[in-house]
Amino acid sequence: MSKEEHKLPLSKRKESVIFMMILFAFQVFMVVLFSVWVRYSKNEVDYDKLTSAEREVLAATGGAVQEEVTNIYGYFRDINIMIFFGFGFLMTFLRRYGYSALGYTFIISALVSQWSVLIFGFFETVDHKNDHGGDFASTFEMSQTVILQGLFCAGAVMISYGAILGRVTPLQMLVVGIFEPIFYFLNMFIGEMNLEAIDVGGGMYIHLFGSVFGLTIAWFLTDKKSKDCEDNSPSYSGDYFAMAGTLFLWMMWPSFNAAIAPLGEPQFRAIANTFLSLTASTIATFIVTRLFGHLGHKIDMVHVQNSSLAGGVVQGCLAHMNINPGGAIGMGFLAGVISVLGYLFISPFLQRRFNIQDTCGIHNLHFMPGFIGSIAACIAAWKGINDKSLYNPIEFEQIFRAGDDQAKNNAAATFISIGIAIAGGLFVGAILKALKKVGGLKAKQYYQDSAFWHVPIDYPKDVEY
Amino acid sequence: MSKEEHKLPLSKRKESVIFMMILFAFQVFMVVLFSVWVRYSKNEVDYDKLTSAEREVLAATGGAVQEEVTNIYGYFRDINIMIFFGFGFLMTFLRRYGYSALGYTFIISALVSQWSVLIFGFFETVDHKNDHGGDFASTFEMSQTVILQGLFCAGAVMISYGAILGRVTPLQMLVVGIFEPIFYFLNMFIGEMNLEAIDVGGGMYIHLFGSVFGLTIAWFLTDKKSKDCEDNSPSYSGDYFAMAGTLFLWMMWPSFNAAIAPLGEPQFRAIANTFLSLTASTIATFIVTRLFGHLGHKIDMVHVQNSSLAGGVVQGCLAHMNINPGGAIGMGFLAGVISVLGYLFISPFLQRRFNIQDTCGIHNLHFMPGFIGSIAACIAAWKGINDKSLYNPIEFEQIFRAGDDQAKNNAAATFISIGIAIAGGLFVGAILKALKKVGGLKAKQYYQDSAFWHVPIDYPKDVEY
Amino acid sequence: MSKEEHKLPLSKRKESVIFMMILFAFQVFMVVLFSVWVRYSKNEVDYDKLTSAEREVLAATGGAVQEEVTNIYGYFRDINIMIFFGFGFLMTFLRRYGYSALGYTFIISALVSQWSVLIFGFFETVDHKNDHGGDFASTFEMSQTVILQGLFCAGAVMISYGAILGRVTPLQMLVVGIFEPIFYFLNMFIGEMNLEAIDVGGGMYIHLFGSVFGLTIAWFLTDKKSKDCEDNSPSYSGDYFAMAGTLFLWMMWPSFNAAIAPLGEPQFRAIANTFLSLTASTIATFIVTRLFGHLGHKIDMVHVQNSSLAGGVVQGCLAHMNINPGGAIGMGFLAGVISVLGYLFISPFLQRRFNIQDTCGIHNLHFMPGFIGSIAACIAAWKGINDKSLYNPIEFEQIFRAGDDQAKNNAAATFISIGIAIAGGLFVGAILKALKKVGGLKAKQYYQDSAFWHVPIDYPKDVEY
Repeated sequence: MSKEEHKLPLSKRKESVIFMMILFAFQVFMVVLFSVWVRYSKNEVDYDKLTSAEREVLAATGGAVQEEVTNIYGYFRDINIMIFFGFGFLMTFLRRYGYSALGYTFIISALVSQWSVLIFGFFETVDHKNDHGGDFASTFEMSQTVILQGLFCAGAVMISYGAILGRVTPLQMLVVGIFEPIFYFLNMFIGEMNLEAIDVGGGMYIHLFGSVFGLTIAWFLTDKKSKDCEDNSPSYSGDYFAMAGTLFLWMMWPSFNAAIAPLGEPQFRAIANTFLSLTASTIATFIVTRLFGHLGHKIDMVHVQNSSLAGGVVQGCLAHMNINPGGAIGMGFLAGVISVLGYLFISPFLQRRFNIQDTCGIHNLHFMPGFIGSIAACIAAWKGINDKSLYNPIEFEQIFRAGDDQAKNNAAATFISIGIAIAGGLFVGAILKALKKVGGLKAKQYYQDSAFWHVPIDYPKDVEY
Repeated sequence: MSKEEHKLPLSKRKESVIFMMILFAFQVFMVVLFSVWVRYSKNEVDYDKLTSAEREVLAATGGAVQEEVTNIYGYFRDINIMIFFGFGFLMTFLRRYGYSALGYTFIISALVSQWSVLIFGFFETVDHKNDHGGDFASTFEMSQTVILQGLFCAGAVMISYGAILGRVTPLQMLVVGIFEPIFYFLNMFIGEMNLEAIDVGGGMYIHLFGSVFGLTIAWFLTDKKSKDCEDNSPSYSGDYFAMAGTLFLWMMWPSFNAAIAPLGEPQFRAIANTFLSLTASTIATFIVTRLFGHLGHKIDMVHVQNSSLAGGVVQGCLAHMNINPGGAIGMGFLAGVISVLGYLFISPFLQRRFNIQDTCGIHNLHFMPGFIGSIAACIAAWKGINDKSLYNPIEFEQIFRAGDDQAKNNAAATFISIGIAIAGGLFVGAILKALKKVGGLKAKQYYQDSAFWHVPIDYPKDVEY
Repeated sequence: MSKEEHKLPLSKRKESVIFMMILFAFQVFMVVLFSVWVRYSKNEVDYDKLTSAEREVLAATGGAVQEEVTNIYGYFRDINIMIFFGFGFLMTFLRRYGYSALGYTFIISALVSQWSVLIFGFFETVDHKNDHGGDFASTFEMSQTVILQGLFCAGAVMISYGAILGRVTPLQMLVVGIFEPIFYFLNMFIGEMNLEAIDVGGGMYIHLFGSVFGLTIAWFLTDKKSKDCEDNSPSYSGDYFAMAGTLFLWMMWPSFNAAIAPLGEPQFRAIANTFLSLTASTIATFIVTRLFGHLGHKIDMVHVQNSSLAGGVVQGCLAHMNINPGGAIGMGFLAGVISVLGYLFISPFLQRRFNIQDTCGIHNLHFMPGFIGSIAACIAAWKGINDKSLYNPIEFEQIFRAGDDQAKNNAAATFISIGIAIAGGLFVGAILKALKKVGGLKAKQYYQDSAFWHVPIDYPKDVEY
């Protein structure tokens, strides 16, 4: 390749300079704020008063900090795999967009993970001040669970990315990565801290919010030409990689839904329900993908890669609840069926009628199963309130924090999630649209790594039909 | 691609309809049975009698249910990776069969994982009734360990799949997935619950059983034309993917053999022996693959992908026993040597003389090392009975459940595993053969995704030599 | 392919025979030494004196052996993934060297993992004898942590392999795998056991040592022709695989640095600092890779694959220390910046002026960030000694084992690591150079699997520009 080909045109150079400046400013800002405001989680112990036996025990066990690491870190690790490997590789199905799929997932999720500590810390500190009064705390204690919150938020951002995959510049993704977390944690602050809604695996805060946000910004980034790009199509080896992403998401999903569930029976149910539900959505996928005659009874890899995961999404809110193992299978099956139908019928409709092009079909994988799960959580909450024999008194208190208002509050949180996602999506979408002037992609550059990446000589050629 | 090409011929449409009907009926059946018969594992606590201090402790620790999750879930997660990712990708080496390898592994293992809860529950309930009398229990308590049993069973089914890879329809795989678990748990019921044989990592129940079952059904699915299909050959990038499968199997194997080992020394030995044995079989593989002149001293990727795992298989029965670390290395080395020799000499012989075509060479990876390990377990049991200094009294009771009959019972379980596998294989193989009439594959469709999958335009072309 | 092509020329046959003989002798040697000298870790319990209640507790909990498994095995598993999958796939970026990258990583790391148990055992026994007198112990107790040490050592060897990737025969790699661990554990013996230096994640012992050793042997294996091989260049799909390696290294790195940290606050900080630092080096990578005009503001995949990991390396020594979360981000950012600059400017310089060709750029990923981290550890040690409020008294004792000499000892260990690595590298490099006569690679065989592997028909053809 000649040197010329490596160069970006002028407008893209501008995009690059702004990208670098914002990212650098962001990082400096982080270093300063983390330095002055964030502290490591500590054991609350008066070391002078310990007997030597107590000291030995503490040295050997590590105390409360270690307990949290022991309970959470294994899940953190799994969810880390889901975000960076799972989402990254799930999106490599396009024939020449894998560098971008992997690369933007990498940089944006890394940024969101850092940024989230501060935003979550801010809202938690506000919440603490609201409840207990006093000044805004001068430092914020970062625990293992706090870092985990950053991965959850990155999950929501990656879901949104799925809708606009292939049609954005790095600068546009950077804007999404900086602003979406603010709306994400605002929503979570309302739903989790004020309404005390039930949402153990982010059915509302992650899947519903992330997908509505993503579909809203996708509306700003859809144009006539983007709709029939030849490069918006999978490749054979790309699908192997995408299946690696799918499988790691699928295999780690029980950890996603169980990570912050109360210990004991709720945590076990979160694992069991999620796993059973995933097996059922996988079964549903293989049935429905073969069912439709216009597809000639052949299996469609797009459905296998995505709809098999719907069973994890649909359990997002209520995986830890006592919904009966048969109920978990039924819900997963339903989610899988609806998800495949979405790919077959609803996505094309959304694109035609509403001008929303949704590259990965997040509507079908995250929105519909997420919404069903959110409504199911309201019903399960209502049932739990009315039949206390379903839960032991300890877990009842842990799960039903809003008491008799639980079902109502969950319904409220569901629609607030949708509302804030739309508002945030409109705000961010408008910025993205404005940024099209700064080195934005032409339609012929959509779904191509070569726009922003050095590519090797075996980079796939243009398709000839 | 034109619309015509997407369509299946009439006989395949029939296959598709039956596939969908059985799978749908299966799923409805599962929802009903799980709903009425399966319940979540619970803490056995009388909550009314707890002091408030006891309540706080229980809320903070999660009780016995959480203890099982803490002990088992990490292993469950690893074995989940082995089944879905490990087996799936290990089988992607064929140049145009990766969708099928990944897809059928996915759907069938998901189905088996669900189905197993019921079958295992049935046999456990029968066993409990045999031991304690009374009625057949009206519900079955599903614990973390029970769900894990489903993954073990899926492992056996995937081993069997390895033998017939490329020569089956989805409908035929569905039949295997529904029937093989019944024989699997019947065998386990006899060996584990009645004979109380030692088999910590499924050396007999999974590897020996799964491979004999697979070789038996492969006999029904081998014909003259299947033997020299050009597509029954690896591709360069396919081998990278297959190595990803191999490596995850290899890396997670200590978890496989240690998952249900008694806590403490046996569990540690299971990890250590498996790991050492795997390093030794890897070393053996690289020696023997280079040894044979007719291969020109070059390394064969097939051996690396498979025989390096023989050290995990050979430890299947007895990884947790006191076999001396040097013994573990020796066993792993022996298994690796024999496995490569199997690929070089025995597989071709089986195909030529016994008409058993074994696509992945499960004979060499699972049968031979599994059989050696099963016999070694008899010897180790005999040694343990005769030299009680090898084990502390606690672990002795946990491991040697059959007391002085241990070696004899293990020998019995070994041959019963082979017997039931042959019987089951004959039964299922006959059905598979009959199902060839329902859209069965023609020889020229063997080892090809395009028979049942939509494939992208870069699907590999026919080979031209 | 004809049979002729499969055959190796005479000199390569000699290489093969010597390779097999050494490897076989090694394995026999291992079986003997493990059998006579290595024993499994045991609970130190007098079983006769246990009450039946104590027995039940021990049976249910597994005692001290289980405690170590519970604390360590999860990390072991993650680091296992890093070594075999992470390093293996990271090195698959070359267009036709993936079998070798994966295969040699596999066999050499397996060998090193075994071999390390003995060498580590030797040095620990010597250390114990030095401290407590008496005879050299007649057996060595292998615990979960001991097996983990083998993976750490394999990490150092794989770093060294990165420098010479593509230019070595299996026999040469075998020599590296047998000798490098001896120097590795000698260095660790001095730094860890004698100087009691701080190095929780192997910043000095693994990254600094491994990279200096690798660069030294690379000097012996660089010649005029190796410098511009057309095959020393990435491929598009190879880069996807390499990203899978990168991501697993990135995601598991907190486990790497936390595995042997003292429980409690130090372990938590090791996780948090490593994770934050990695996010920062990822951000730095994307800034600096776009910054340089001669690259036209496009993103370079080489930087993304490597420099994003610099944040893990730089935390190697001191991840568990109280460096402030802002400090962790700052260090990660700095490491990322310097690493990309290394790829852009220093590696070409090293190759041109010092005749050191460093295929993977270990200088930029391991040497520079490793050295910065080692120096930072001296500073953090000095700070900790002078401001005891930074640590609680329990962790202070655990971390600052050398007391007031800590900073000085850490500085000494840093330079001793470099010194021993150079000495070892010169010794091993000289052997490697001598072994060029035994079937050594010609320049036109560099960076090609076909030299030692059977390759399928779709093995990439020679590049035509």
